[in-house]
Amino acid sequence: MLILVMRSDAKVSEIGAVLQKVEQFGLKPHLTKENGKTIIGAVGESEELLAVDESFLRLPGVESALPTQQPFKLVSHEFKQEQTRIQVGDVEIGGQEIILMAGPCAVESEDQLFKTAEGVKEAGGKILRGGAFKPRTSPYSFQGLGKQGLELMAKARARFGLYLVTEVLTPNEVELVAGYTDILQIGARNMQNFSLLKEVGKSVKPVLLKRGMMSTLEELFMAAEYIAANGNSRIMLCERGIRTFEKYTRNTLDLSAVPLAKKFTHLPVIVDPSHAAGKRDLVPSLSRAAVAAGADGLIIEVHPEPEKALSDGSQSLTIEVFKELVQELKRIAEAVGRKIGD
Amino acid sequence: MLILVMRSDAKVSEIGAVLQKVEQFGLKPHLTKENGKTIIGAVGESEELLAVDESFLRLPGVESALPTQQPFKLVSHEFKQEQTRIQVGDVEIGGQEIILMAGPCAVESEDQLFKTAEGVKEAGGKILRGGAFKPRTSPYSFQGLGKQGLELMAKARARFGLYLVTEVLTPNEVELVAGYTDILQIGARNMQNFSLLKEVGKSVKPVLLKRGMMSTLEELFMAAEYIAANGNSRIMLCERGIRTFEKYTRNTLDLSAVPLAKKFTHLPVIVDPSHAAGKRDLVPSLSRAAVAAGADGLIIEVHPEPEKALSDGSQSLTIEVFKELVQELKRIAEAVGRKIGD
Amino acid sequence: MLILVMRSDAKVSEIGAVLQKVEQFGLKPHLTKENGKTIIGAVGESEELLAVDESFLRLPGVESALPTQQPFKLVSHEFKQEQTRIQVGDVEIGGQEIILMAGPCAVESEDQLFKTAEGVKEAGGKILRGGAFKPRTSPYSFQGLGKQGLELMAKARARFGLYLVTEVLTPNEVELVAGYTDILQIGARNMQNFSLLKEVGKSVKPVLLKRGMMSTLEELFMAAEYIAANGNSRIMLCERGIRTFEKYTRNTLDLSAVPLAKKFTHLPVIVDPSHAAGKRDLVPSLSRAAVAAGADGLIIEVHPEPEKALSDGSQSLTIEVFKELVQELKRIAEAVGRKIGD
Amino acid sequence: MLILVMRSDAKVSEIGAVLQKVEQFGLKPHLTKENGKTIIGAVGESEELLAVDESFLRLPGVESALPTQQPFKLVSHEFKQEQTRIQVGDVEIGGQEIILMAGPCAVESEDQLFKTAEGVKEAGGKILRGGAFKPRTSPYSFQGLGKQGLELMAKARARFGLYLVTEVLTPNEVELVAGYTDILQIGARNMQNFSLLKEVGKSVKPVLLKRGMMSTLEELFMAAEYIAANGNSRIMLCERGIRTFEKYTRNTLDLSAVPLAKKFTHLPVIVDPSHAAGKRDLVPSLSRAAVAAGADGLIIEVHPEPEKALSDGSQSLTIEVFKELVQELKRIAEAVGRKIGD
Repeated sequence: MLILVMRSDAKVSEIGAVLQKVEQFGLKPHLTKENGKTIIGAVGESEELLAVDESFLRLPGVESALPTQQPFKLVSHEFKQEQTRIQVGDVEIGGQEIILMAGPCAVESEDQLFKTAEGVKEAGGKILRGGAFKPRTSPYSFQGLGKQGLELMAKARARFGLYLVTEVLTPNEVELVAGYTDILQIGARNMQNFSLLKEVGKSVKPVLLKRGMMSTLEELFMAAEYIAANGNSRIMLCERGIRTFEKYTRNTLDLSAVPLAKKFTHLPVIVDPSHAAGKRDLVPSLSRAAVAAGADGLIIEVHPEPEKALSDGSQSLTIEVFKELVQELKRIAEAVGRKIGD
Repeated sequence: MLILVMRSDAKVSEIGAVLQKVEQFGLKPHLTKENGKTIIGAVGESEELLAVDESFLRLPGVESALPTQQPFKLVSHEFKQEQTRIQVGDVEIGGQEIILMAGPCAVESEDQLFKTAEGVKEAGGKILRGGAFKPRTSPYSFQGLGKQGLELMAKARARFGLYLVTEVLTPNEVELVAGYTDILQIGARNMQNFSLLKEVGKSVKPVLLKRGMMSTLEELFMAAEYIAANGNSRIMLCERGIRTFEKYTRNTLDLSAVPLAKKFTHLPVIVDPSHAAGKRDLVPSLSRAAVAAGADGLIIEVHPEPEKALSDGSQSLTIEVFKELVQELKRIAEAVGRKIGD
Repeated sequence: MLILVMRSDAKVSEIGAVLQKVEQFGLKPHLTKENGKTIIGAVGESEELLAVDESFLRLPGVESALPTQQPFKLVSHEFKQEQTRIQVGDVEIGGQEIILMAGPCAVESEDQLFKTAEGVKEAGGKILRGGAFKPRTSPYSFQGLGKQGLELMAKARARFGLYLVTEVLTPNEVELVAGYTDILQIGARNMQNFSLLKEVGKSVKPVLLKRGMMSTLEELFMAAEYIAANGNSRIMLCERGIRTFEKYTRNTLDLSAVPLAKKFTHLPVIVDPSHAAGKRDLVPSLSRAAVAAGADGLIIEVHPEPEKALSDGSQSLTIEVFKELVQELKRIAEAVGRKIGD
Repeated sequence: MLILVMRSDAKVSEIGAVLQKVEQFGLKPHLTKENGKTIIGAVGESEELLAVDESFLRLPGVESALPTQQPFKLVSHEFKQEQTRIQVGDVEIGGQEIILMAGPCAVESEDQLFKTAEGVKEAGGKILRGGAFKPRTSPYSFQGLGKQGLELMAKARARFGLYLVTEVLTPNEVELVAGYTDILQIGARNMQNFSLLKEVGKSVKPVLLKRGMMSTLEELFMAAEYIAANGNSRIMLCERGIRTFEKYTRNTLDLSAVPLAKKFTHLPVIVDPSHAAGKRDLVPSLSRAAVAAGADGLIIEVHPEPEKALSDGSQSLTIEVFKELVQELKRIAEAVGRKIGD
């Protein structure tokens, strides 16, 4: 990608002329704005030609032009230096506030969902998580309530004033799920399901993109690039643990992902301590660590009766434990110059 | 799953009565035949109830009934003791012959594909591999020729008398790809794309299922179970290397997958040494090892001019090297009581 | 191991009688004291016999007797429920205060060491780290100053009022190193050097035991058990990152090690963010996370001029950055109910 | 390292002059001979100075001088192009014959050892393996018979005409163990025990160096370099599996280590399928694969009564199974142009 920074006083006609030229070269332009300046990212095979075209670089209004070094372009810090803030209703993700997302692994019933939602709201959570379509290792395991689960979540949203995040599994269902949820979740197993990434890239809904359990961070950033390249730049990266040889935990939470994502991209970073640990009693410690490391949000599994959960009960917190945890997290957030809740 | 072995002299009416009963219990029956006996696998939540229903177990024609121990059922050796043999035209996969599949990573042009196909055929290969839809880490990389690539493959098939294996990336395209290819390939990144697995499970075409680079063997067997549970039991498992900390190779080929797949399942096992190594000069050694380990086939990247390949050139063999390798492999195949080619 | 809890009013003679009996069974007794009660751990092959010997269990003064479940015994929480606190001069490790250990990877010169020591002291550090004997991957790399390095550390100790931690590489040198240092460090590569573990187990100096970069936590606890079984129970566990497929970092810091070590053992846990990250700019974020996760101390590489370091310069903080970091860590320590410095 | 190739007609006095000059530069010379030419490897900090010293490069008898690119020097293919062959009595390791080493994990008794040795000999094995000093994860596990075990092995050597390989655990015991064994084994956990590597580097006995289960191949080559740099270049590399996330096997055998070791070094490569698999029934398949991949030898655990073994019984073959396996391996060895036994 060639990054073109327009002067702050560049005229609309000058910007238009640059865009026209970019397209003449067979490149696709992507626009962003920073500090009052329009920035154009030109992507395509001939970008190197453009980068050495003297007449182009001297077009009126062009302040500077430089090629990106990283394989990821639109999500890179080179393209956009400011941290991206994603607005979901009145909630801003990526700003000073650390956003708590919580809820059950799978939506099981109205009663289960409403009890959880009530607790999440009371504790200070802003986003309700819950799976309607569940990717399960076994074809014989509970696969989620599907559309009925989405409807229950929509009811919980209306009743408790929480926004929703839920997973979408297949390109065909993006439209359906986006019709109910506020944030589309791409699960770890689908991080490199490129057809699905392209499809959510065309959606207007923000995306929570989970790191594959065996994916490098560069691959995570490239997966985000797929979404951005298709038009949707409202992306949150989510660290949820990677596979290692350690046996006490299901996966090893890689908290260096937080500073690295901030160094290389402009996207908010969410941490999921529940799936990494796979065990309830590690969640508080890892949550505290994530906040201290600089995460912009947490996504935590909470269930009114974890021992009865149809999926992943062993890693779910009770509502009471979640509430206590939020109090601890608030103190740490303050200690690092941020805040949780109002 | 409850495995019901019918007596070899069981009447059709007796088998029908058992099936009816199984369905009354809300279970789904799967049938296979071995040594002249019909075997019924009954899957569902109430299978434990059925397992202790004395009157059921004493139905006429039932020889024995036992529950499976493994989480995978239909693909397990418990359900079917005989090795599955998959017929693709006049080629049998899983029998005494070790089948060679070879071709370019991506179909690039008629010239490239035909040159390769000709060499593969001459060398003794039976199946032509080639990617028409390519899953690429970067949205800006060559994504394959798509439908045009499929058409070129179909032409190569007709001209050189080879069968085809090519990857399908998304549920929507299963029908399209199945219209051209003889074997549907599920790539490593899609091994847990459950929507896609369900869709190929409904196809009549055999499936080559690659192990995810992040997946345990049990997860591979469970992914195969998704396909089988949807009706398609013509599945080949493919070991293609897993992620480790070693830096000289792209992935670490796990050849213990071969005896383990044979121990736990009845499916043929194919080894892909090219993607594991990521380097051409390791492919011959790993191919020889795979044949000696007991693989039922190999899938190898071959390109007429590897240095010009649009994708994965560094791991492709030239046609000449491939031909020499086949000669070596023939000798090893004989040493282990099998054969390659006619 | 059979854990025998003596009644709080057990007489010395009663304890003696139990010890005698334990030894008659060919078992080795280990003693600890908790809440005024003497606890005897009896280890050996015949421990199961003893566990069912009715007359033994009814000896005067014995309150309860139960076998351990874990393969590690003396370091387990089952044997000792109270957190171990290790006194090094006037510094207590494992108590309310979080202890900072800092210094250069390798001792290079008096000037380098003294400048660092001065900065560490000013920042609030309590322990000076520095390598005199360096385990280097290449036989041609700088192997440390050896005895001269120890002497420089002893001078820095006297001058700046810091205690010392330094690595010992081989059983032969334990006595030499213990003559200078306050804490003996066992490096990651030596975590399963059992001869060395046995030797430091006979030392009176406390031990900082680093987790092998490819060791499970259970193996770390077993390595600690080797030290304890040889008589030295003043052991700190140190998490320093494990090997994974991720490429941006040298190793992946596994912070779940902190709550897990506290759950399964009674030993203090120290975190080394420098070696895990391998990159200076990740150290502050990981240090903050470690404190929030519950670490009892940090061990951080600090160098007056990192770019000139003979070893591991890229991961060393400057003294200035270290001082700023300590201020941040103090706030987080308070937020989790602990403190750093006085 | 600077590699100096002397002309084939270089006089002894010319070689002497070059050596003198190398030492004047503060470098350490290492000599080898290939195709009638003396090759001098000059190692040290000032090697770059020497590499550009025109008068030095024009000394009489010097044919060429080039610096090595790899971090490992003396073990590299750059330094010595011919494959190293190690003579152990009348057995040559690294030549056309593939050498079988077999025996119990631990020496337990004369009866157990002699029964095994007899079987190994009959099957065509040349080297008897057996542990006298055992590195065990738990301090409470059987630690080997020690000196008594060495004496039993010496008796078996005399009686059955087999050579010996046994592990040495600590620098202090190198002399003792070397007094009994023909080959010194460095175990996986000690691959980076640099004190031990230096000590065996001073021994006259050949060394079997096992890859650490946590080590990259480059680290393995560097560990071999430690031994070579201390004077002992009779080193065999041994692949024995690395840690991954896969759960069916204890470790994942990395057979790409075989061609890679041959590409980068001149040392023979031995494969240990027993420790990698951790399960008896995988050993035949992995052994066949290792021979086909190009291994120069195998080291296999064999026990007369595996179910009664004090250590690692689950991965030991019975003598009968071992004998059958050798027959299969012979056929594969022939198929790849080598041989097993006489």
